[in-house]
Amino acid sequence: MYNQSELKKIVDRSIANLSYNTEAEKLIDPVKYILSIGGKRLRPVLALMACNLFNDKINDAVIPVTGLEIFHNFTLVHDDIMDQALVRRNFPTVHSKWNINQAILSGDVMAFIANECFLQTPPHLLSKVFRTFNKAAIEVCVGQQLDIDFEIAAIVSQEEYLKMIELKTAALLAASVKIGAFFGGAEEKDSELLYEFGKNLGLAFQIQDDMLDIYGDVKIFGKVSGGDVVAGKKTYLFIKAMEIASSGQRKQLQEQFSKEYSEPEAKIKAVTAIYDQHNIKTITENLANEYIKSAFTFLEKVGVQPARKEEMIQVTRSLIGRDR
Amino acid sequence: MYNQSELKKIVDRSIANLSYNTEAEKLIDPVKYILSIGGKRLRPVLALMACNLFNDKINDAVIPVTGLEIFHNFTLVHDDIMDQALVRRNFPTVHSKWNINQAILSGDVMAFIANECFLQTPPHLLSKVFRTFNKAAIEVCVGQQLDIDFEIAAIVSQEEYLKMIELKTAALLAASVKIGAFFGGAEEKDSELLYEFGKNLGLAFQIQDDMLDIYGDVKIFGKVSGGDVVAGKKTYLFIKAMEIASSGQRKQLQEQFSKEYSEPEAKIKAVTAIYDQHNIKTITENLANEYIKSAFTFLEKVGVQPARKEEMIQVTRSLIGRDR
Repeated sequence: MYNQSELKKIVDRSIANLSYNTEAEKLIDPVKYILSIGGKRLRPVLALMACNLFNDKINDAVIPVTGLEIFHNFTLVHDDIMDQALVRRNFPTVHSKWNINQAILSGDVMAFIANECFLQTPPHLLSKVFRTFNKAAIEVCVGQQLDIDFEIAAIVSQEEYLKMIELKTAALLAASVKIGAFFGGAEEKDSELLYEFGKNLGLAFQIQDDMLDIYGDVKIFGKVSGGDVVAGKKTYLFIKAMEIASSGQRKQLQEQFSKEYSEPEAKIKAVTAIYDQHNIKTITENLANEYIKSAFTFLEKVGVQPARKEEMIQVTRSLIGRDR
Repeated sequence: MYNQSELKKIVDRSIANLSYNTEAEKLIDPVKYILSIGGKRLRPVLALMACNLFNDKINDAVIPVTGLEIFHNFTLVHDDIMDQALVRRNFPTVHSKWNINQAILSGDVMAFIANECFLQTPPHLLSKVFRTFNKAAIEVCVGQQLDIDFEIAAIVSQEEYLKMIELKTAALLAASVKIGAFFGGAEEKDSELLYEFGKNLGLAFQIQDDMLDIYGDVKIFGKVSGGDVVAGKKTYLFIKAMEIASSGQRKQLQEQFSKEYSEPEAKIKAVTAIYDQHNIKTITENLANEYIKSAFTFLEKVGVQPARKEEMIQVTRSLIGRDR
């Protein structure tokens, strides 16, 4: 069996070996750039790991699941335009390094490069692998729309928020492990269990990501600390605080999130003070841990020997409790 | 056999019957809008017509080739952002009716709705249909990149220009008829001939489109007259004029195309005067006609009875000599 670091190397190599239509270099430069500035390659690694649960041979899966990483980076390039984000993984975002038009177009071509990867799936799996991916791709777009809608919504409930991140983040992670299971030759029941495992992992992951925006180490996390607060993004922390804070604090929070502060630092400080008073960090961590517990419950039921699941369990543990 | 107007109705119905993920209406509203403001449905209609050359049954092809129209409209939504175009088919463009972020995201989801259509292809054709589409999709992005690059290039040769429109416009038309041929059960040789037919038709179509920007009837053409001139787009007319005009006129043309006029009317008038002096309209029409002739040569070689090709010939004729 392969461990996480071996799988990451396999994915990195697959990305490095991608061949591109070279008739317009300017189109592909940003693609190579965004794929080169790192990232954990989480989706293809989890997919290969899921495949490896059932099968020692993972070769057929490598190029297709590389499409998951290309697609994920396509969404990052376009989301960064929409969010006017200047930094990603400690590097300039594509639209800030080039320009918005270039980021739109180079992003677009990545969607079709991802397709090209999926089209390398062996014929007997092509339809179900591609459908599983494509359903998730549409869900990611829907989730991003809800995320944008929430920015101008007066109130967002915890339920609405969880639905949004389920679509925007968890759906693709869930699809990734399910697709991996298909390549491994898993039975329907096991691939569904792994989908649920991935979904719960994705929910935990995003909730933790929200928390790290304020409480993470900026150097390791690779994003501007408090970026979500400054941008007025309604994260889980904000929604939870709005639910349990006093009415005076609620008003204060709402004011902070709606107005553009000249001093972002002051804004972050004021918001964090309210969060701290209500233990929002701990509440958020607890929710993330609940999802992880439920992810493990699904994984336990998958019909392979416990020893084969060790690497998957370890990766899941390392993702939660991460500071990046 | 079906005629063009019957096929257009079939495609319109297929578009009207599309089912969408309804969890975020705001995402889908612009999709419905851009698909509702008309257009000739040229790509799916030609695809169904190509299918119908070989086979009286076209049912299996309808939903998949609808993906060609969705993809085409996806490129229009994003291209209109890049070109800062305000009007499309006499209606406001998506980004001007909503905003740029919405146009990016609703455009994105169209790429995956197109995939969803192609995924309805029967298993024995899925791989070759999808690969043919996806190759063209990447070429369209490359063509759009070259189109953007040409805006800042000092000189663009006729050869470079023709390569650009081959990628940006002709590749998808070519893929459309080839995909249609696959659904009809055509032999490899015939599907390749139809690809070449579609490519030449696409080249003719785009060259004529360039011509109509200045010499078309604005009410029928549905775009602002001289829009390419005002935007400084190097069309075939400009490139040809730069090739044959006097050095004084070349300088004048270059100046007109590089500076932003406060009065677009004056700019269009000055440029048109130079074009007229060198018969650019006729030269352009002649080139379009040459490509049409060559399209017909490929169509003639396709191994079905001439009577079955009548509708395809008629559509091709109606496309050239159109004023919209």
